[in-house]
Amino acid sequence: MSRAAVVGAGMTKFGVHESPMQELFADAAFEALDDAGIEAGEIEALYFGNAMGGQTENETHLGPKMATHIGMAGTPVQRFEDACATSANAFKNAVQAVEAGVHDAVLVGGVERCTPETGKDTPEMTRIFGSASHRQYEQPSGLTFPGVFALLTKRHMHEHGTTEEQLAHVAVKNHGNGALNPNAHFGKETTVEEALDGPIVADPFRLMDCCPFSDGASAVVVVSDDLADSYDAPVDVTGVGHATDVVPIGDKREIGVTQAARDAAAEAYEQAGIDADAVDFAEVHDCFTGAEILASEALGLIEDGEGGVAAEEGRTARDGDIPINPSGGLKAKGHPIGATGTAQIVELTKHLRGEAGERQLDAADCGVAHNLGGDSATTVVSVMEARQ
Amino acid sequence: MSRAAVVGAGMTKFGVHESPMQELFADAAFEALDDAGIEAGEIEALYFGNAMGGQTENETHLGPKMATHIGMAGTPVQRFEDACATSANAFKNAVQAVEAGVHDAVLVGGVERCTPETGKDTPEMTRIFGSASHRQYEQPSGLTFPGVFALLTKRHMHEHGTTEEQLAHVAVKNHGNGALNPNAHFGKETTVEEALDGPIVADPFRLMDCCPFSDGASAVVVVSDDLADSYDAPVDVTGVGHATDVVPIGDKREIGVTQAARDAAAEAYEQAGIDADAVDFAEVHDCFTGAEILASEALGLIEDGEGGVAAEEGRTARDGDIPINPSGGLKAKGHPIGATGTAQIVELTKHLRGEAGERQLDAADCGVAHNLGGDSATTVVSVMEARQ
Repeated sequence: MSRAAVVGAGMTKFGVHESPMQELFADAAFEALDDAGIEAGEIEALYFGNAMGGQTENETHLGPKMATHIGMAGTPVQRFEDACATSANAFKNAVQAVEAGVHDAVLVGGVERCTPETGKDTPEMTRIFGSASHRQYEQPSGLTFPGVFALLTKRHMHEHGTTEEQLAHVAVKNHGNGALNPNAHFGKETTVEEALDGPIVADPFRLMDCCPFSDGASAVVVVSDDLADSYDAPVDVTGVGHATDVVPIGDKREIGVTQAARDAAAEAYEQAGIDADAVDFAEVHDCFTGAEILASEALGLIEDGEGGVAAEEGRTARDGDIPINPSGGLKAKGHPIGATGTAQIVELTKHLRGEAGERQLDAADCGVAHNLGGDSATTVVSVMEARQ
Repeated sequence: MSRAAVVGAGMTKFGVHESPMQELFADAAFEALDDAGIEAGEIEALYFGNAMGGQTENETHLGPKMATHIGMAGTPVQRFEDACATSANAFKNAVQAVEAGVHDAVLVGGVERCTPETGKDTPEMTRIFGSASHRQYEQPSGLTFPGVFALLTKRHMHEHGTTEEQLAHVAVKNHGNGALNPNAHFGKETTVEEALDGPIVADPFRLMDCCPFSDGASAVVVVSDDLADSYDAPVDVTGVGHATDVVPIGDKREIGVTQAARDAAAEAYEQAGIDADAVDFAEVHDCFTGAEILASEALGLIEDGEGGVAAEEGRTARDGDIPINPSGGLKAKGHPIGATGTAQIVELTKHLRGEAGERQLDAADCGVAHNLGGDSATTVVSVMEARQ
């Protein structure tokens, strides 16, 4: 049973862009519309995500600005912001509206500029990113996100014996995948030795354990299930789960367990009528290598505690038994915050259609996207399946 | 035919608050829950609005932060930002989800801190507010919102002979209403003479033509139509329209006509199965006195071009034929951006239940809320009716 279908997908290259946000978003949006073969005038609503435009470039109320720039002025549009889970939440609400019959066809996407092209340097961007952490308890202590995920990962290492080498294997895999992705921020491979030799950012994370700040945009066209077959290459959205967890991190019941991801995955799998065994591949939110390991377990793709071993053994490689982040993930593809969630949907769409080029997976009938925000306080998990 | 029902409503006093956003929002949320007689655990989702927390206090990802603070961690929540139409958009999406059967009971609300309590002074806040205007075409020219609405109003004066005295009558009426509202930022009356004697902010607006920056929060409980009767005092939501218009203002077809408001009103009235004649009263987005005049016409409550005359003649007063802004409006009640949209829903709920105290309107069976964002580029219009 499909809740809705994705019939068009587009994204910019992730990396460093001079173009303002409207132009970046237009590039992704037009590619998605062209891919679907749908006219802008047939789109009934826009679900738009941007995380930090107000803080980076004094740009808010971006919904109508984007709609205007892509020729959809008049269309209802709302901006979503849920930290790094921004555009996955836009996607969730879009699927919900289409399934309910409120709209037949909508455009969903996001854009972000996070590099010095915004005029903000890395310390300033780090402070801005830190706005997603708890204002009273975390920000004053200087706990930015490398530190948050370092704490989660350290706990996993303590409980399960996960090693820095295993973390490095995640980086090596994702950089290898990214080298096959023309839209990736980083097109270069790395090695375990290089990763382990990098400067420490937040113990246990070294430079190669951390994703970059990127500029970029992504967009998908979502239509109702009964319209899907009138498009060339529909892909079914069979489940979208969404859950939150407590903030600040100190209030979490178990910090090595990303509970929101487990709750969101359970909801998404139930909607899709599958269990984790049915999943062929996944795009997960690897803002840090440790986050990929936690996600692979929370989604039920790898046994609890085995995420590090699985990475080391190559189980999550493109030719492994459960490929994770064939796009290169946030680690190598890049992380333009508000564009990341729908970029995962773009990647799933490509593989499920058999259009992922050099990085195409052999078995790709069921894919999962996992997009988290803050210290895993928001997670959206989406299940997509090749249309039968 | 009701789309959903509001069964609980709460808000803080609007004004200057020392409390952080979580505490302000909790005050409004708990009042709404108590008013409904519903437990937090029965709320299935939170639709949350905040416009500028990232810019004012480095606070983003507020959805899970708010959910945690009010004991709803785990609940799905997303933050909406659509400039001054922020929480009306949250309300729209909540009504849609409840109507579709996705959720039975949800909490909708918003919060904002805009006063120097944030640590930002008025020039800084003006720059932050200006982020909703066009980044490339309007911000560099210094066109902030008093200027935007001054342009719209000047056009109306040019075309229809609207006068500064008529604008002053809007301020006098709304301050008079605000003096009856214990939650209003300004509890004092004013006079036409005082209004016309104020310093010019942006011609034709003087000080008393402009709403203040306020701190505050508001929230409502929305349940499905078929559950409504199990609550004490349900109010029906019969229509919610949402439209956008082009940005920047220079691209608008006719700047004296707020087209998005007309489109949103037409959609809301059609859903409700009414025309403007059926409306007994309205809460409209009077960020400036001229904006109320434009809104009263766009909603079809006053004939086009007659908005100024109607204000002068007292037609929009509490004892007039179509009372507008019995709460005092943004002008006197105040304008904590992300809380304004749902505060209008709170006010409609009070009158439709006959619980508006000293300012209760005699005839209040059908009310309309009109919440706009940016240079009228987003407008949400909601129709609410007393339950039969």
